[in-house]
Amino acid sequence: MSDSIKVFAPGSVSNVGCGFDILGFAIDGIGDEMILSENDLNKISIKPIEGYENLPTEASKNVAGVAIQAMLDDLGSNQGFDIEIHKNIKPGSGIGSSSASAAGAVVAANELLGKPYSREQLVDFAMQGEVAASGDAHADNAAPTVLGGFCIVRAYDPLDVIQIESPKDLWCVVIHPQIEIKTKEARELLSAQVDLKKAIRQWGNVAGLISGLHQSDYNLIGRSLEDHIVEKQRKILIPEFDNLKQAVLEAGALGCSISGSGPSVFALANGRETADVIAAAMDTVFKRTDLDYKIYVSKVSDGGVKIL
Amino acid sequence: MSDSIKVFAPGSVSNVGCGFDILGFAIDGIGDEMILSENDLNKISIKPIEGYENLPTEASKNVAGVAIQAMLDDLGSNQGFDIEIHKNIKPGSGIGSSSASAAGAVVAANELLGKPYSREQLVDFAMQGEVAASGDAHADNAAPTVLGGFCIVRAYDPLDVIQIESPKDLWCVVIHPQIEIKTKEARELLSAQVDLKKAIRQWGNVAGLISGLHQSDYNLIGRSLEDHIVEKQRKILIPEFDNLKQAVLEAGALGCSISGSGPSVFALANGRETADVIAAAMDTVFKRTDLDYKIYVSKVSDGGVKIL
Repeated sequence: MSDSIKVFAPGSVSNVGCGFDILGFAIDGIGDEMILSENDLNKISIKPIEGYENLPTEASKNVAGVAIQAMLDDLGSNQGFDIEIHKNIKPGSGIGSSSASAAGAVVAANELLGKPYSREQLVDFAMQGEVAASGDAHADNAAPTVLGGFCIVRAYDPLDVIQIESPKDLWCVVIHPQIEIKTKEARELLSAQVDLKKAIRQWGNVAGLISGLHQSDYNLIGRSLEDHIVEKQRKILIPEFDNLKQAVLEAGALGCSISGSGPSVFALANGRETADVIAAAMDTVFKRTDLDYKIYVSKVSDGGVKIL
Repeated sequence: MSDSIKVFAPGSVSNVGCGFDILGFAIDGIGDEMILSENDLNKISIKPIEGYENLPTEASKNVAGVAIQAMLDDLGSNQGFDIEIHKNIKPGSGIGSSSASAAGAVVAANELLGKPYSREQLVDFAMQGEVAASGDAHADNAAPTVLGGFCIVRAYDPLDVIQIESPKDLWCVVIHPQIEIKTKEARELLSAQVDLKKAIRQWGNVAGLISGLHQSDYNLIGRSLEDHIVEKQRKILIPEFDNLKQAVLEAGALGCSISGSGPSVFALANGRETADVIAAAMDTVFKRTDLDYKIYVSKVSDGGVKIL
C-alpha cells in the first residue's frame, strides 16, 4: 500500500439547449467524492457503492474501472488501484453521473502516477469509461467534468474538445425530479431526420450561444439557448416540464432546457440572486406534485474535478 | 440638387462552410462603387448600369431602390435620390452582388440624411432590398456588407445579428468562374431533411468556428470549416470544385468551400503569403480549363461599406 488521494467529481449539464451532443458544462453544487489508493495487486478493485447496489463493481464493467484501465493501457502500466466512490449523483439523473465517476477516477489515478497526462489528454480516457456505461462514445459530460468551464466537443476521431471559460456571473439552477430516464430510451425518442430549416435555426442559435459565452453577453446567451429539435421530443418524459419552464423564465432565467437526456432540467441566470429566485420558482412548481426532487444552485465549475 | 456621396460596397462570402444561411463576411478586394445624390423630385431614380443591362432600373424592382425606400418609409420621408452604380461584382457570382447594391445604397442615403440610423439598424433595410432580388429574406450577405467583420445572423423576426471582429491575420482568396448560378436553383438542389447525426456534426463545427474566430485560433477555424450537408449537394454546379479544393488545401489553406450558392469558391488563410500561394494554386487549376475566371486576394472587411 502506498499513496491515496481524494477527489470531488462534479455533476454536469450536457446539450445546453441548442448544443445537442456537442456542448456541456460542469457544476460545483453537486458531485461525487472518490478515494483512490494504489495497491500492489496489479488489479483495479472497486468497493461496493453504498446506496447504489445496482452499479457494477467489476472493474471491467464499471465506468471508473474502464476509464482507469484505458489510461493504464496507454501508459503500459499494470498499477493496481482500490476505488471507493461516495455517490451523490444518481445514475439516470441527466446530470452526468457516469461521467463524474469516470472523470474523477482518471484525474485521481493520474495524480497518483505523477501526472503523466494533461487534463486535456484525460478526457479521452474518461470518455472510454463512458462507453462502458452507455455503449456510445459521448464526451459532452466527460470533457467539462474533467476540464471545467464550457466544453465544445467539436468532433470525435480524433476527439476535438474546445474549452471556453464561463462568464463570471453565470449561475446554474438544476432540478432533479427523482425518477430515472435511461439515456438509451431518451435517444430512441428522437427522429433520425430533421428539417433543414430547423437545423439552420439550431446552428444559428449554437453560433449565438458560443459567441455570447466568449463575450460574457448574458442576453445573447439567453436568446440563443432555444432548442427547436430535441426538447419537444423529449419533454414528454419529464413531469411538469412546461410549467417549470414557464415559471423559471418568469423568474428571470436567461433560458431553460433539459439537462442531458433528463429528467433533470437546468436554467441559467445572470447572478446568484436571480438563481435563488429561480430555485424558489422551481420549488413552487414541484411541491404541488407528489414527486421527490432536489434543487441545486451552483456556479459553473471552473476547473472540473478537484483534488481534496 | 444638393448633396452627393460616393461609397465602396464590398463583396461578401456567405455560408462560410458549416455556417449555412447564418454566417458571412465581407471582403475588401472586390466591390461596387455607388454615387448617391439627393434630388428634389421626391423620387428614387436609378441610372442604367453599364454592362449589366438586365438589372432593373425601376426603383421598386431594384435592390438599391427597394432598400432605400424601406428606410424612407420607416423615417416617414419622401426625399428623392439619383443613384449611379458602377458594378464590379457580377450578379449570380456568389459573392453578394445584390447585397453590395442594397448595403451601399442605404449607407449612402443614411449619410446624406444626417445619419438617422446606426449601421446595425441599416442591416434590416438592406435585407429588405435583398428580398426584391431573391424573393427570400436572408441577411448573411447584407449584414457583413453593412457592418464588416464576421456576422452571425442568429434569427429573423426579429432580426438578430452578432458581429465578430475578424482575426488580424485572416486572409481570404476567392475565385469567381464566370458562369452564373441562380440562388434559387442552387437552393432547389438541397434536401429538405438532413440526418440528425450530420446536423450534429455541422453544429459542432459551427461552435468550433465561432470559438476559433473569437480566439483568433487559426487551426481551430480551419478544422471547423467543414460542411457535411450543403457542399456535396451543390458542388456539382461548380466546374473543377474537387480539384480546386484539393489544390488550395495542399497550398496551405485553413479551409475551402463554396461562397454563397456559388459558383465562386473561397479559401481562408493565415497570412498574406499563404493567401498568394493559394491564389496561384487556384490559377493553375483554372487555366487548364477554357473558362474565364477572376481571383481576388483580400482581408476580411473591417468596417463594411466605406464612404469614399
